[in-house]
Amino acid sequence: MDRHKALVFAYTKTALTPPKELGSVVIRLKKYSNTLRDALEDSRYTRGESSVHLPFDKTIARAVEDMVAATVSRGLKYVIVIGIGGSNLGARAVYEALYGKNGARVPLGKPQLLFLDTADPHLYEAVNRELKAHVKHTGEVLINLISKSGNTTESVANFEVLYAELKRRLGTALRNRVVVTTDEGSALWNAAQAHRFKTLSMPRQVGGRFSMFSAVGLFPLAAVGIDIATLLKGARDITPACMSADVHKNFACASAGVLYVHRRKGLRTYNQFFFNPDLETLGAWSSQLMAESIGKERNDKGKIVHEGILPLVSIGSTHLHSLSQLYFGGPRLMVTTFIYAPNTAPSTRVPRTVILKHLKGIAGVPLSGIMGALYGGVKRSYQKHGLPFMELVLPALDVYSMGQYMQMKLFEIMYLAHMLGVNAFDQPNVEDYKQESRQLLQARR
Amino acid sequence: MDRHKALVFAYTKTALTPPKELGSVVIRLKKYSNTLRDALEDSRYTRGESSVHLPFDKTIARAVEDMVAATVSRGLKYVIVIGIGGSNLGARAVYEALYGKNGARVPLGKPQLLFLDTADPHLYEAVNRELKAHVKHTGEVLINLISKSGNTTESVANFEVLYAELKRRLGTALRNRVVVTTDEGSALWNAAQAHRFKTLSMPRQVGGRFSMFSAVGLFPLAAVGIDIATLLKGARDITPACMSADVHKNFACASAGVLYVHRRKGLRTYNQFFFNPDLETLGAWSSQLMAESIGKERNDKGKIVHEGILPLVSIGSTHLHSLSQLYFGGPRLMVTTFIYAPNTAPSTRVPRTVILKHLKGIAGVPLSGIMGALYGGVKRSYQKHGLPFMELVLPALDVYSMGQYMQMKLFEIMYLAHMLGVNAFDQPNVEDYKQESRQLLQARR
Repeated sequence: MDRHKALVFAYTKTALTPPKELGSVVIRLKKYSNTLRDALEDSRYTRGESSVHLPFDKTIARAVEDMVAATVSRGLKYVIVIGIGGSNLGARAVYEALYGKNGARVPLGKPQLLFLDTADPHLYEAVNRELKAHVKHTGEVLINLISKSGNTTESVANFEVLYAELKRRLGTALRNRVVVTTDEGSALWNAAQAHRFKTLSMPRQVGGRFSMFSAVGLFPLAAVGIDIATLLKGARDITPACMSADVHKNFACASAGVLYVHRRKGLRTYNQFFFNPDLETLGAWSSQLMAESIGKERNDKGKIVHEGILPLVSIGSTHLHSLSQLYFGGPRLMVTTFIYAPNTAPSTRVPRTVILKHLKGIAGVPLSGIMGALYGGVKRSYQKHGLPFMELVLPALDVYSMGQYMQMKLFEIMYLAHMLGVNAFDQPNVEDYKQESRQLLQARR
Repeated sequence: MDRHKALVFAYTKTALTPPKELGSVVIRLKKYSNTLRDALEDSRYTRGESSVHLPFDKTIARAVEDMVAATVSRGLKYVIVIGIGGSNLGARAVYEALYGKNGARVPLGKPQLLFLDTADPHLYEAVNRELKAHVKHTGEVLINLISKSGNTTESVANFEVLYAELKRRLGTALRNRVVVTTDEGSALWNAAQAHRFKTLSMPRQVGGRFSMFSAVGLFPLAAVGIDIATLLKGARDITPACMSADVHKNFACASAGVLYVHRRKGLRTYNQFFFNPDLETLGAWSSQLMAESIGKERNDKGKIVHEGILPLVSIGSTHLHSLSQLYFGGPRLMVTTFIYAPNTAPSTRVPRTVILKHLKGIAGVPLSGIMGALYGGVKRSYQKHGLPFMELVLPALDVYSMGQYMQMKLFEIMYLAHMLGVNAFDQPNVEDYKQESRQLLQARR
């Protein structure tokens, strides 16, 4: 893997899953491995699983790079991503892992991403306030409207509001500063083409939550100068391990197996416990993946099962001070994965001579060392309490790690859905509220 | 209630709790009502319940106002709150409800709150970057270190790092710009007094998660000019309803009763579904309250029970696009409260003439109207699916509503803990990981 480092995964001593039980689960995946092997080569994206091919797809990467070449020049200050759920979480997760929440660590002079997801006047106001203060001409701004179906009410509404406002201020050349990412041939696609907006397509069989490595996730990142080639390389490099028949090499399969074995014993909640606060949105991304892929009323034989595991995102050490009493003392229906990138610059340190001398042990310690001690202490305490957990150490908060992590999670959820006997790729129960909402909207008139 | 408006609570038709069942639960609370009535008058804070007296405590309010008078003058730009869990969530919840995440809507020229909670070098860097850019002398900054026990590793470490950095830049007069909030007589209290830092105390019997209306929550808000008098008035005004023997007038008791009845039938998760994204931290605050107060290994008779309900915070409409498939289709172990303040300025509207004409029904509609339709649609869909829920409508995103909401939640959790037979006021299972972490820290040397 060149100079890039691999993720480190550990679970055998702590997941409280007898090797025999896990082995008997994993061995039944042989046939499904063939499906995944086919999907890996499926450049025509004929099935749900085919999203694992995306990091290998040079056509998509090239289309994204071409669009960047056509839209990004030196003066660019903001790329506004208008999208919700699978249309923004992937890009946002990577962006925040690299640059912090709200891009707090974006190097000065580099373009920033702004995100408009829900239809909240306050959210819109915050974005607009930033744009008003800093954007004077169209070259400084780029709008990326992302909606797979093209019918996402919040996203289309946010786009209409923002476009009208910016056009009023910056003029009709704004038309050239819009990139619409949607299914080719969707109503939005046609509307975009009619307005001569630029368009990027996504493979129709790839669902929103699986679309990180398509133009959906790649374009916004590339537009602000993030190295998507290395992101994709991370995803490609971890793929053989995710296909390995040796469960000890295959994190995706092992993790799914652990969750499955516990699920059969009553597991309700999967706690993704991140010890880098900037990974919170990465947790939101994988939470969608789990919630929508295995939260199912019916199994793949049509039987009503109400399957599902609630994905939870905890942040160390913040949530130790608000939720851990419940984790340690409460119902034992939770499996945890601790995720930690210990090597984070900068190495800010507590001074060697402290003022408040009553607290021992912190003088001269870097903040990351304090976090490390909390991380270690929590793991020890989980073991003592008999709470099952897995561990994933990221070598760095960089694109290569993110690529590995996200591709691994895509495999993991496919394995888990297969074990549980549910269709990972549909979301049949979300249409109803949308229908009701549309009726209420139309009743306003 | 003067010109201020009351919260509106609804549940009878949607909580799927037979009135008889609920009634039989509530009637058993008579004795506990006497305890609460005593607590309400308990200006010496002799028991856990006495936190309900805080909004009536003029001594505390005056101490806070006096400290504001002593520390805040026109040039103040930033108040940095160093605290974690119960030491920052309350103030942060109110601040963000009023001004948005990261204070995005703080009026220009008004001071801002910055929060340092966990020991993360990136979090510290983001705060320090802001201070470096905008703070040139000590009058522009105020540090409020908050730790009930005084021994919170992350908070003391963050304080040491920040204090050293600012002192180096701004000089020794920084000493006058520190307010330490802690238990009187704690080791931190003594260290603070030795350094002639200013101090604010909190009642010893009031736990961190119950301390919102003490100096812990009030001082940071008052220091940036937020009207704590009206916040406290909101809390006081809702108190009689929270003591009412008529369950239809008593939201706190009714909500606790609904949760209790469902808990006895297998409830695992309490979903607090906010349709104003800026209330996310309010959800984090009440989540701590629930997790630590009823997540208990042992009941109040010492028997091992592993009691607890997992508090979840969902944000409308964001999480509809990532988690609602699980809510609608997955395991039926969840009760939801929808919380919504529909009347939010500004009234940004979709233009009457839209560009993307394929999506019907949005032209001319304000963004808040779109959110309202989604809110209504989700409620209808929950009813159709037979998913139990309650509803709480906030008249506005203002301090008066926040005061009502938070005091109501304090009562609610005390009722619920009493029904479940657990001690709401301890957190016996969080010491172990702290001990382990301290050992690891000391082993570094």
